[in-house]
Amino acid sequence: MSTETETKTTLRLSGNPALSLRVEPNRLINTIHETAQFGAKFQWGSRSTDTGVCRLALSDEDKKVKDWFVKEVEELGCQVKIDDIGNIFALYPGQDNSAKPTGMGSHLDTQPTGGRYDGIYGVLSGLEVLRTLKENNYVPRFPIMLVNWMNEEGARFPMSIMASSVWAGLASKEDIYRMESVTDDKPVTVEHELLRIGYKGSIPSSYESIPLAAHFEIHIEQGPILENEEKKIGVVEGVQAYTWWKIHVKGKAQHTGTTPMNLRNDALLAASKMIVKANEISSKFGGLASVGIINSGPGVVNVIPDEVSFALDMRHVEDSKLEEMIQEFQNEFPKACKESGNKLKVEFEHLHTQKATHFDKTCIQCVEESALELYGSGNYRKITSGAGHDSCATNTRCPTSMIFIPSKDGVSHNPEEYSTPEQVDEGFKVLLSAVLKYDQLRTE
Amino acid sequence: MSTETETKTTLRLSGNPALSLRVEPNRLINTIHETAQFGAKFQWGSRSTDTGVCRLALSDEDKKVKDWFVKEVEELGCQVKIDDIGNIFALYPGQDNSAKPTGMGSHLDTQPTGGRYDGIYGVLSGLEVLRTLKENNYVPRFPIMLVNWMNEEGARFPMSIMASSVWAGLASKEDIYRMESVTDDKPVTVEHELLRIGYKGSIPSSYESIPLAAHFEIHIEQGPILENEEKKIGVVEGVQAYTWWKIHVKGKAQHTGTTPMNLRNDALLAASKMIVKANEISSKFGGLASVGIINSGPGVVNVIPDEVSFALDMRHVEDSKLEEMIQEFQNEFPKACKESGNKLKVEFEHLHTQKATHFDKTCIQCVEESALELYGSGNYRKITSGAGHDSCATNTRCPTSMIFIPSKDGVSHNPEEYSTPEQVDEGFKVLLSAVLKYDQLRTE
Repeated sequence: MSTETETKTTLRLSGNPALSLRVEPNRLINTIHETAQFGAKFQWGSRSTDTGVCRLALSDEDKKVKDWFVKEVEELGCQVKIDDIGNIFALYPGQDNSAKPTGMGSHLDTQPTGGRYDGIYGVLSGLEVLRTLKENNYVPRFPIMLVNWMNEEGARFPMSIMASSVWAGLASKEDIYRMESVTDDKPVTVEHELLRIGYKGSIPSSYESIPLAAHFEIHIEQGPILENEEKKIGVVEGVQAYTWWKIHVKGKAQHTGTTPMNLRNDALLAASKMIVKANEISSKFGGLASVGIINSGPGVVNVIPDEVSFALDMRHVEDSKLEEMIQEFQNEFPKACKESGNKLKVEFEHLHTQKATHFDKTCIQCVEESALELYGSGNYRKITSGAGHDSCATNTRCPTSMIFIPSKDGVSHNPEEYSTPEQVDEGFKVLLSAVLKYDQLRTE
Repeated sequence: MSTETETKTTLRLSGNPALSLRVEPNRLINTIHETAQFGAKFQWGSRSTDTGVCRLALSDEDKKVKDWFVKEVEELGCQVKIDDIGNIFALYPGQDNSAKPTGMGSHLDTQPTGGRYDGIYGVLSGLEVLRTLKENNYVPRFPIMLVNWMNEEGARFPMSIMASSVWAGLASKEDIYRMESVTDDKPVTVEHELLRIGYKGSIPSSYESIPLAAHFEIHIEQGPILENEEKKIGVVEGVQAYTWWKIHVKGKAQHTGTTPMNLRNDALLAASKMIVKANEISSKFGGLASVGIINSGPGVVNVIPDEVSFALDMRHVEDSKLEEMIQEFQNEFPKACKESGNKLKVEFEHLHTQKATHFDKTCIQCVEESALELYGSGNYRKITSGAGHDSCATNTRCPTSMIFIPSKDGVSHNPEEYSTPEQVDEGFKVLLSAVLKYDQLRTE
């Protein structure tokens, strides 16, 4: 990590230049609605803006929003760079253009049944920052880079946080070029689609060829915490660690009517106890857990199930605690078997573990001070992201942090994803302020 | 019920005429293996007899075994009657042929992945009884009727205990004629298949046109109790009541990573608690319960399930206790919702309830005394059938009881269904003895 030197310079944060800038109310939400035309789908309410968005990575609709984005940032005087994995970098000049730019970014692609905010809000808030600087003739000390990261969702090409991971050197570009789409009747590769829509740039995707001094990302929470606690802003300190497992329970298929309770090996009963236990473990450790998928066979009303498998997702802010949670379920699940039948067996299949992300202290401080100055101490809270974001990738290569605004009912990956125009503007101001604070305290 | 008069005559059971008859060891098991050629399938072991049987009702294979059966009983001197729903009645003469015959019966059709014993053992044991009488020149006081009931399994035409129910007046023959097969690519009706294979007889199917004085059925247990307790014989006192429900749990789909444990409405967690609770209730009441089918949506690893449905099967020997079990789960399941999330809801959909069957005391006594005299008090036990049988239908029209022999590992509806040749012969002798005892004590 190249961020240590900069991280140490967090102590003398200066004043808040953003507070003196004139901002244009509601322009950002209007821009969000404007770009939602590229893939608008799934009308859920009576207003024209009550739709979701289906804008899969590298689709025709994604090309349209990319074209629109490039045009917008060029009109603001940005220099646009496109790397060879389809990330778009818009460089807004500062006073010292020889230094690395301060980054802002997120993604414009969506889930198949996506909303108008996830990712989109981050890119368009960044655009609103640049528009605000331009209108106020505010020239930052260092350049600012707005990034649209390609395929964060991993919906069409099945790897989330795809192109920011390539930029960060965490994923093989060649492997990804060959990856095939999973949402097309006739699968196509990432490289094919990059070429088809004209977004395979010439610059090698890398934190070395297109470096960033920092990365700020604003996003909807996608959870109910801020709304539930009536907070305007979440100061995101990091992203939880998570681990995915497939649990296989094997019992014995027997007739419900002819098999006494004490002679059974009911795989679904054992699995049910495990599901209850997984929830108890997560509460005990202050983590999260759920079972999102369960399959049970043979699937006959009067036959005791002999084969049950389920997918377990467990999360914790701390890697070490997540390790303890894994240990605990591996100890407890065999006990659930033992007490349910003497022939029951459980097998653990590890699918994936993602370590916790801890964002940069200076970046977090810029966000927190901005929230404090704008809205007061009662209106924000520190929070850990439950979901992954492009900032998890950038955080491995430059100081990074995130800002959350409330999501109505915690809903996301759904057409009804919603934040109010006020919440949208409130978050944007924190981004503007945090980026300018960071610009001021940078020593490079 | 027309059986009360006869039921009262149970007190003076006479000696055991069967004990003086010469029986032919292993002929019955050889006959079982011989007829398994009609539909043998699913080799599971190395011996030629290590297969299951696929002999769906009114299929070509079923016609073949019916033809074979008719020929066998005619060679023994039986008069064969076929009713208009495909039941085959083989009348073996007694001394007084004006009286109703004493019945023995079961079924020769199987599940799609059936074994060599379920049902088949009952019909062929009856055949072995007739062969034994013939060889010993034993003429019973009253005629004996061996019945092959059509479509007990309900696998091809989806109603179990079909044709014995028509005979008993419990089901509409016209509805059943129109019922379509569910295992054929192109569905055909029951009547079509009866006509096609030549087994739509001319006699109206009815307990009035072809009456029985009693009905004895020997069957494999299809459960593990006898094997587990090392008993040779189960003296079946009745068939449990059962009730089938579909339970619908509705919660809220949210992101596992972004939704705190205390703000969730996890339908699968609530359902898991219900499944555990259903098992507790059944143990508390001395009944049985299982959940054989579960479906959960939306089925994404990191999304909390919002829609779970599962099929609940609950059983008890006593109807009143089953009622209490139903009350209890209807009280307890909403509690499982309440403790798992404030928006969770559960709905109960009743599918079917079958009241308990209590077999005739005289018939039971004939079976029990036979088991006692043949094998001693430690080698049999009274038992309640967990599964339904043709005897549930006959019991509504004539004194009925059943005999069980052990099933290896409690396995049934499976090619590996197995009972040893010794167990097969031991059970047959109880049937022979019980039928002759009943013949002796009948007053009609």
